[in-house]
Amino acid sequence: MSTMVAAPKSRVSRQTWQFTEDVRVQASATVVGPKEGKGPLASLFDKIYPDIYAGQKSWEKAERKLLEDAIQIALKKANLKEDQIDLLLAGDLLNQNITANFTAELLSIPTLGMYGACSTSMLTLANAAALVNSGFAERAIAACSSHNATAERQYRYPTEYGGQKPPSSQWTVTGAGAAVVGIGGNGPRLTYATIGKVVDMGMKDPLDMGSAMAPAAVSTMIAHFQDTGRQPQDYDLIVTGDLAGIGYPIAKEMLEKEGFNMDKVYNDCGLMVYSPEQEVFAGASGCASSAVVTYSYIMNQLQRGAMKRVLVCATGALLSPISYQQGEAIPCIAHAVAFEGGA
Amino acid sequence: MSTMVAAPKSRVSRQTWQFTEDVRVQASATVVGPKEGKGPLASLFDKIYPDIYAGQKSWEKAERKLLEDAIQIALKKANLKEDQIDLLLAGDLLNQNITANFTAELLSIPTLGMYGACSTSMLTLANAAALVNSGFAERAIAACSSHNATAERQYRYPTEYGGQKPPSSQWTVTGAGAAVVGIGGNGPRLTYATIGKVVDMGMKDPLDMGSAMAPAAVSTMIAHFQDTGRQPQDYDLIVTGDLAGIGYPIAKEMLEKEGFNMDKVYNDCGLMVYSPEQEVFAGASGCASSAVVTYSYIMNQLQRGAMKRVLVCATGALLSPISYQQGEAIPCIAHAVAFEGGA
Repeated sequence: MSTMVAAPKSRVSRQTWQFTEDVRVQASATVVGPKEGKGPLASLFDKIYPDIYAGQKSWEKAERKLLEDAIQIALKKANLKEDQIDLLLAGDLLNQNITANFTAELLSIPTLGMYGACSTSMLTLANAAALVNSGFAERAIAACSSHNATAERQYRYPTEYGGQKPPSSQWTVTGAGAAVVGIGGNGPRLTYATIGKVVDMGMKDPLDMGSAMAPAAVSTMIAHFQDTGRQPQDYDLIVTGDLAGIGYPIAKEMLEKEGFNMDKVYNDCGLMVYSPEQEVFAGASGCASSAVVTYSYIMNQLQRGAMKRVLVCATGALLSPISYQQGEAIPCIAHAVAFEGGA
Repeated sequence: MSTMVAAPKSRVSRQTWQFTEDVRVQASATVVGPKEGKGPLASLFDKIYPDIYAGQKSWEKAERKLLEDAIQIALKKANLKEDQIDLLLAGDLLNQNITANFTAELLSIPTLGMYGACSTSMLTLANAAALVNSGFAERAIAACSSHNATAERQYRYPTEYGGQKPPSSQWTVTGAGAAVVGIGGNGPRLTYATIGKVVDMGMKDPLDMGSAMAPAAVSTMIAHFQDTGRQPQDYDLIVTGDLAGIGYPIAKEMLEKEGFNMDKVYNDCGLMVYSPEQEVFAGASGCASSAVVTYSYIMNQLQRGAMKRVLVCATGALLSPISYQQGEAIPCIAHAVAFEGGA
């Protein structure tokens, strides 16, 4: 028998990356609006603004403020300054990623702009972890945001119009999340990422994105289980990003039909941000849905040992108002990142 | 004296990456519209569509066709199938990156969506090279597109309106470019990438993006020269992405004031796509400006030994119609990639 041990490989499969170094979330932060601040996770958020303007003159500027705050609070927790961060990987839901780009300018950190709709939380985190793992960056920040009012007027109608919505629609989370990623420390470890493919099942209703996104989430989760040899029960918690009340049971059923037992282990961030009494239709959505749950509650559970392994599969609907007006189906994607308890 | 040689480090500085493996563009392809097909580089493009609909029913679908074609032609040149590519890194100018996302769906390749406006060509290429260098992907495709008519109606006015433009405005290139990135082969090598910071100098005129982007290009080029210890004369050619007739002389003067001699070595892709007789105001712009020049002319020059080292600094104006209507300045970014002759 040889005592030679092959170096761990970073490419597990075509879709799954393994982080071979001690890559960790060294600090994370979440900032939200008033409605999220009345939800069940309120005590875990770092900052809650009492109104959706967050002291700014426009909703777009307010969203920027949330993202900037989340990054600054994460930096403060990590005891770092902007110039100690090599890379910012960020995105949001607004056209041309303006929240991320204007925030990047304030921070003066070299920036990779990313867009994965509501999957941007794990898209940026996976990529940050890969670049830190391979030494291209010593420390990186992954961050994203969404804002209910900016998303409403961009994707749907001016909010003043008061358009009615079906129960399948979702409530875009006003919030932002940021994570400082580096080697070492005692934060939660990043162990695997599974990169999604774009899929659609012919769904065309932009007011039912949960159903549209469920197959993308299932595709990425199955790839993750197959590539890593893990089963759902190897995790203490598996969450999708924002499938909410309609999409979540669809994804669960699809996974169970494929032989994966999701009992007790599976939840959806879109069902965790608000309490059932809050009027949010089918549940939460937006880049911030998975970001504010992951970077508050999940990091907290891992940090204090209440959970050992968590998989976050962030889901994104890649439609634009132009694409659905032109009769196209909604292409969706999901990216998953596996976390392990710190220390 | 020790004979120990330290392994080359992938992180040269906060902004500059060094590709320590033999990372190469194994194949590349460019597809353009009719106007670009009458320009000086026409003979080097892989496919020229005789009209801007490219056989499709909408301009958006046409742009998608250009991107799909570019990727398929690059794959064919590399003698590879879609399922031999681990990652697609792609972006475009349309809201929600719909060109890239719908194309990704057709190809069924795991996808990282990126957005850097017209800097997306080098943003995707730099990131692809980093992920291939570190073994997260065996082969990746970096690709981007723009289309004159889709950009006009999204960023400015419906083309039917016939709005007049000032001479400082630019002509968005209808085209797409794709590169297959892998280890080994005899294509041009990727040696360094310098990641940009978002900067603005207070420029607010969306019809003069060359002036707005020049400082971002200068910032990234200076970081590149300082980080690598190279001088402009160490390159046979340095190009910016789409500064065109107004931005190019501004960037050149700024660099020369900083002590960099740009004589003879510096050009701009925005001045290379069209001939002076073609009516394009100050010159070319769009993700495809740098992509179609880099992935045709520059790859060709490197491949046949006519040039040994080239630096492509792709420039992006990160504005949105909302941001400039709200009176914001135009944030800009530039990402640079250094190429070396193959074999």
